[in-house]
Amino acid sequence: MAYHFRNDYSFGAHPKVLKALCQTNLEGNPGYGADSHCAAAAGMLKELCRAPDAAVTFFIGGTSVNFTAVAALLRPWEGVFCAGCGHINTHEAGAVEATGHKVLALPAGPDGKLSLEELARALPLYGDVHLVRPGMVYLSDATETGGVYTLAELESIARLCREHRMYLFVDGARLGCALTARGSDVTLPDLARLCDAFTVGGTKNGALMGEALVLANPALHEDFFRIQKQRGGVLAKGWLIGAQFEALLSGGLYFDLARHANEMAQRLQEGLVRKGVPFLFPSPTNQIFPIVRDEDLPGLQALCPLEVWGPAEEPGHTIVRLVACFATAPEEVDGLISAFPAP
Amino acid sequence: MAYHFRNDYSFGAHPKVLKALCQTNLEGNPGYGADSHCAAAAGMLKELCRAPDAAVTFFIGGTSVNFTAVAALLRPWEGVFCAGCGHINTHEAGAVEATGHKVLALPAGPDGKLSLEELARALPLYGDVHLVRPGMVYLSDATETGGVYTLAELESIARLCREHRMYLFVDGARLGCALTARGSDVTLPDLARLCDAFTVGGTKNGALMGEALVLANPALHEDFFRIQKQRGGVLAKGWLIGAQFEALLSGGLYFDLARHANEMAQRLQEGLVRKGVPFLFPSPTNQIFPIVRDEDLPGLQALCPLEVWGPAEEPGHTIVRLVACFATAPEEVDGLISAFPAP
Amino acid sequence: MAYHFRNDYSFGAHPKVLKALCQTNLEGNPGYGADSHCAAAAGMLKELCRAPDAAVTFFIGGTSVNFTAVAALLRPWEGVFCAGCGHINTHEAGAVEATGHKVLALPAGPDGKLSLEELARALPLYGDVHLVRPGMVYLSDATETGGVYTLAELESIARLCREHRMYLFVDGARLGCALTARGSDVTLPDLARLCDAFTVGGTKNGALMGEALVLANPALHEDFFRIQKQRGGVLAKGWLIGAQFEALLSGGLYFDLARHANEMAQRLQEGLVRKGVPFLFPSPTNQIFPIVRDEDLPGLQALCPLEVWGPAEEPGHTIVRLVACFATAPEEVDGLISAFPAP
Amino acid sequence: MAYHFRNDYSFGAHPKVLKALCQTNLEGNPGYGADSHCAAAAGMLKELCRAPDAAVTFFIGGTSVNFTAVAALLRPWEGVFCAGCGHINTHEAGAVEATGHKVLALPAGPDGKLSLEELARALPLYGDVHLVRPGMVYLSDATETGGVYTLAELESIARLCREHRMYLFVDGARLGCALTARGSDVTLPDLARLCDAFTVGGTKNGALMGEALVLANPALHEDFFRIQKQRGGVLAKGWLIGAQFEALLSGGLYFDLARHANEMAQRLQEGLVRKGVPFLFPSPTNQIFPIVRDEDLPGLQALCPLEVWGPAEEPGHTIVRLVACFATAPEEVDGLISAFPAP
Repeated sequence: MAYHFRNDYSFGAHPKVLKALCQTNLEGNPGYGADSHCAAAAGMLKELCRAPDAAVTFFIGGTSVNFTAVAALLRPWEGVFCAGCGHINTHEAGAVEATGHKVLALPAGPDGKLSLEELARALPLYGDVHLVRPGMVYLSDATETGGVYTLAELESIARLCREHRMYLFVDGARLGCALTARGSDVTLPDLARLCDAFTVGGTKNGALMGEALVLANPALHEDFFRIQKQRGGVLAKGWLIGAQFEALLSGGLYFDLARHANEMAQRLQEGLVRKGVPFLFPSPTNQIFPIVRDEDLPGLQALCPLEVWGPAEEPGHTIVRLVACFATAPEEVDGLISAFPAP
Repeated sequence: MAYHFRNDYSFGAHPKVLKALCQTNLEGNPGYGADSHCAAAAGMLKELCRAPDAAVTFFIGGTSVNFTAVAALLRPWEGVFCAGCGHINTHEAGAVEATGHKVLALPAGPDGKLSLEELARALPLYGDVHLVRPGMVYLSDATETGGVYTLAELESIARLCREHRMYLFVDGARLGCALTARGSDVTLPDLARLCDAFTVGGTKNGALMGEALVLANPALHEDFFRIQKQRGGVLAKGWLIGAQFEALLSGGLYFDLARHANEMAQRLQEGLVRKGVPFLFPSPTNQIFPIVRDEDLPGLQALCPLEVWGPAEEPGHTIVRLVACFATAPEEVDGLISAFPAP
Repeated sequence: MAYHFRNDYSFGAHPKVLKALCQTNLEGNPGYGADSHCAAAAGMLKELCRAPDAAVTFFIGGTSVNFTAVAALLRPWEGVFCAGCGHINTHEAGAVEATGHKVLALPAGPDGKLSLEELARALPLYGDVHLVRPGMVYLSDATETGGVYTLAELESIARLCREHRMYLFVDGARLGCALTARGSDVTLPDLARLCDAFTVGGTKNGALMGEALVLANPALHEDFFRIQKQRGGVLAKGWLIGAQFEALLSGGLYFDLARHANEMAQRLQEGLVRKGVPFLFPSPTNQIFPIVRDEDLPGLQALCPLEVWGPAEEPGHTIVRLVACFATAPEEVDGLISAFPAP
Repeated sequence: MAYHFRNDYSFGAHPKVLKALCQTNLEGNPGYGADSHCAAAAGMLKELCRAPDAAVTFFIGGTSVNFTAVAALLRPWEGVFCAGCGHINTHEAGAVEATGHKVLALPAGPDGKLSLEELARALPLYGDVHLVRPGMVYLSDATETGGVYTLAELESIARLCREHRMYLFVDGARLGCALTARGSDVTLPDLARLCDAFTVGGTKNGALMGEALVLANPALHEDFFRIQKQRGGVLAKGWLIGAQFEALLSGGLYFDLARHANEMAQRLQEGLVRKGVPFLFPSPTNQIFPIVRDEDLPGLQALCPLEVWGPAEEPGHTIVRLVACFATAPEEVDGLISAFPAP
């Protein structure tokens, strides 16, 4: 039997979410998101963000929402700062550049976080008008390696953004896991207050598909539908996403699922640490990165299909990624702990 | 009670399709379309097209698949011919231009079809190297007003395309209705033989969402995934579309649903013609375009929410659109015939 | 001996302009337009426009300045209205679309002018958010067929633009000829008052190369250098254009040259009309469009290489273009009148 | 008196070049490069390259030719490798990204050269289809810091390019200085044999403006004019560049001027080294990079306006750039050596 820790998009939807979606099947809804489910879900999210002046719209996927936000917010001569490991700089196949904008990648540590210091160091270079103007800071929260920003970090970066007329955008594909991570001090109202725009990811947290985009800055609302349509981000049967977010945001289900995913990953991490397995860094969320001997890799892959993250610093070792999700059971975690190759 | 003829994307999925999708929920599938459902559905479609060398990939929506195909196939200095009423020239918010390509709109009649004559008339102008080179012909089949191409028309346009080194792309958002229209002599193998690429639309024919893109020309396969990813057209849980197409392509369900939609629309058209209602033209598919007196419009809208298509030639009259789909019942059709304002 | 009426860019620069340029050769100037010649020329143009708050920057060519202005001013989901015969819609090889923007071509008469009526008719269609938003009106003055806008026309279009939040851009590749046409009532201050941006063309009026871009609307100044650089519009030895405009704007040379080109073309047009030659329309500027019998065309081409404009309405006849410039001599005009085939 | 070592585009043209250009002034030439001067210069360059099947076209500036070549050669999902200090990655204001392509910047040493090793290390990462495909290697020769590639280096990189189906493009804005650098073993025929395309820069080597683009790979010729026009790279009075290159390529003037610039820079570098001034690295071409104490910088700037290149490794020190050109006199060099602050 194989274990399922390859990623957090291998299973469909949480049963409550799937049921809500199925119930809409023959309602006869207006198309393109102009339906009551999208309206209700948007209202719930604005309420949770305490942001009555925000606008909320729904996208199908993360790449799509990221490049559409960049294209909508930036002027043609502007670029976007991000960590070198940032999703827009790597696994989106040049999607941001395809909209005409330069990604300005900065160094980040193993937690994948972009620091105020790196931003402050980079900014003066771009005073030269032969270069692009930095117009946005892109953060992933949680990051691609599971790191989580503190409120103090977000506040200082938001301040820098305002001082330098840059938008702050947070890619929240795994925002649920970030907000419910042990020790996290950031809330949805904090994000709505500090960011110009951010996403609340559904795909990796209990939905079949769907990312909510919160346009917290009212200056960004006008004509947004047109660019979302132009970039392929409007679903004809838009209520499918609205209904799923209605279900996720009801009774805190969204946060419960994220907390569960975090707990399962933490249980796995702690178990492996106890066995002496080293880690890239102590990730607090649902993605963890153990380091294994190269000769143990094939056996581990057979046991538990996974993503190889890259070579470890220590020769002969490899960093791998294990991911928990809403559907991960504690028994699976404990089984993998037992079966995992001892270092 | 209101009638539902506003469009063919107001309802969810046919029950068999929804069931197939739900059954995948906890299977644990690989992401990004690398699953067995997508593989099976692609195989079925290639078989139906008798095109073993084609490649099939799945997109979520029509705008997305259209602009990605244009961006993937054309070189930067090339444009795409289409009818003035073509979807890419109108209701996609400049999506093709946003990829850098000029849409070369040509006049079309009320059936929305691009004629060989118009293409042949336009081509010589573009010998001038200060203009873009026409690199593609885009046809919608059925067209935006419900028209259907004959095999002879497609063959002559395909020949012109080969002679002038242009790709032939058919937007099949409503391909099911085109192929099953009364009198249609075109088949999937014809399309696979004549086109470089074409789509088989699911969204408007029984699926929650999804368009299959058939890359009939093998020269177009290489690296296609990269541009699909780059333009936001890859669904993380790709099997959701694969499983729906599996269901649609099993036992001819896809064609049955399209035939039903056509029959309901034709029944409505014939009933209204009998009442003396004039039409834009005798559409053979699931979209029909009656002409109503302006003073009757508000009452009709209350009875049956619909899209206003534009002013009719006769002053004081308006063209409206009525659309049937897989979920339309004959009783609804007959009810609307009775209730429709007599001319 | 062959006559030179093919176009207005077959000769180099007016001797005074060439001399000014040569005098800068070993001055040792800062690069990229940060020199005293560009500053002086910009100051002279702002003075002539009575627009102290405008910014002036210099481009090498017309296509470059047009697409850079469109890219700088519009948001990604916006398109630009122009006459169907407008340069950006035809002879720029899709340059505007290559920046991602749709050209919204409207019908125009033989004088090539875009009318308030056509604009007002088109605007309501674009209230639909599935279409691009019209963000700019592009006019050529003089037009591609030599037509000239009146002050009343420009004022009414400018008003419409303000009402609908569209920028007004005038492509002045032949602005000198427009402003000095017999009966013209438009001045540089009028343009600076009514337009958000416009160009003052040097290439076709006595310079080796160079178009001045007047950014009359101060909201457009910020970061303009960055996009000009990004789109290839910044000349390393920028002073070469500045020095030429200094010479052209000194003592009214720019207007003298344009007036001369107009007079030569008018003398030719009047002479041919006296011979009974029909014209596309009575152009008031330096481009005129006689209609000739097809069998006379080869002989005329041998005598006077020219551009064929297209078929005339009368079968067996062709519209051709004849162009005068700063270097055209009256003897040449009179010679061509004599030699021109009688209708 | 101030010294002129700020850059190599502060002066106009070499007198012979300027004279050739002036002689064309009233010839009456066809526009857009379809003239005899461009044809002659292209023929001379193909002869010098021993590349009869190449095509040569002329651009006004370096940014323009770089991004047009990238846009013409790459497919939308492809990126371009270059050194981190490469011109396309820095001082072109995101021009390549504005055409939709990702710049894949790799580390380089102080000589600014991209090494085979870095390329070979980076390539495997891009096997992942969620990333862009590397479609081109961009080299500057001479580099931005004056470095020069050896024939062995170019050959090994060209081989790697062929093995991985990447185009090889050399930005020759300072190609004259590279080819005439002491010890250089690369020739124009080598470049024509190894590269798919490369430029021969005129702007920084005796011309008012102009870069020749050699399309050595015949597969790249078709429709190239259309994209050059589309991206603003076609000069209306194209013969102005053709005539300048005719003069530069006659009797080896192009190489004489480059050799002179190199000699002046080397004389300066050697003089300063003798005074004990440290350098970033021993540049063999016309750009040299001395390191000065921060407190000496203001005085040096007053004496000799220059570009600050960045902080040196040693605290309190700055790297500056000094550039010689065709117009630099030995007396100026010797004067600056004397006046330069001793370390």
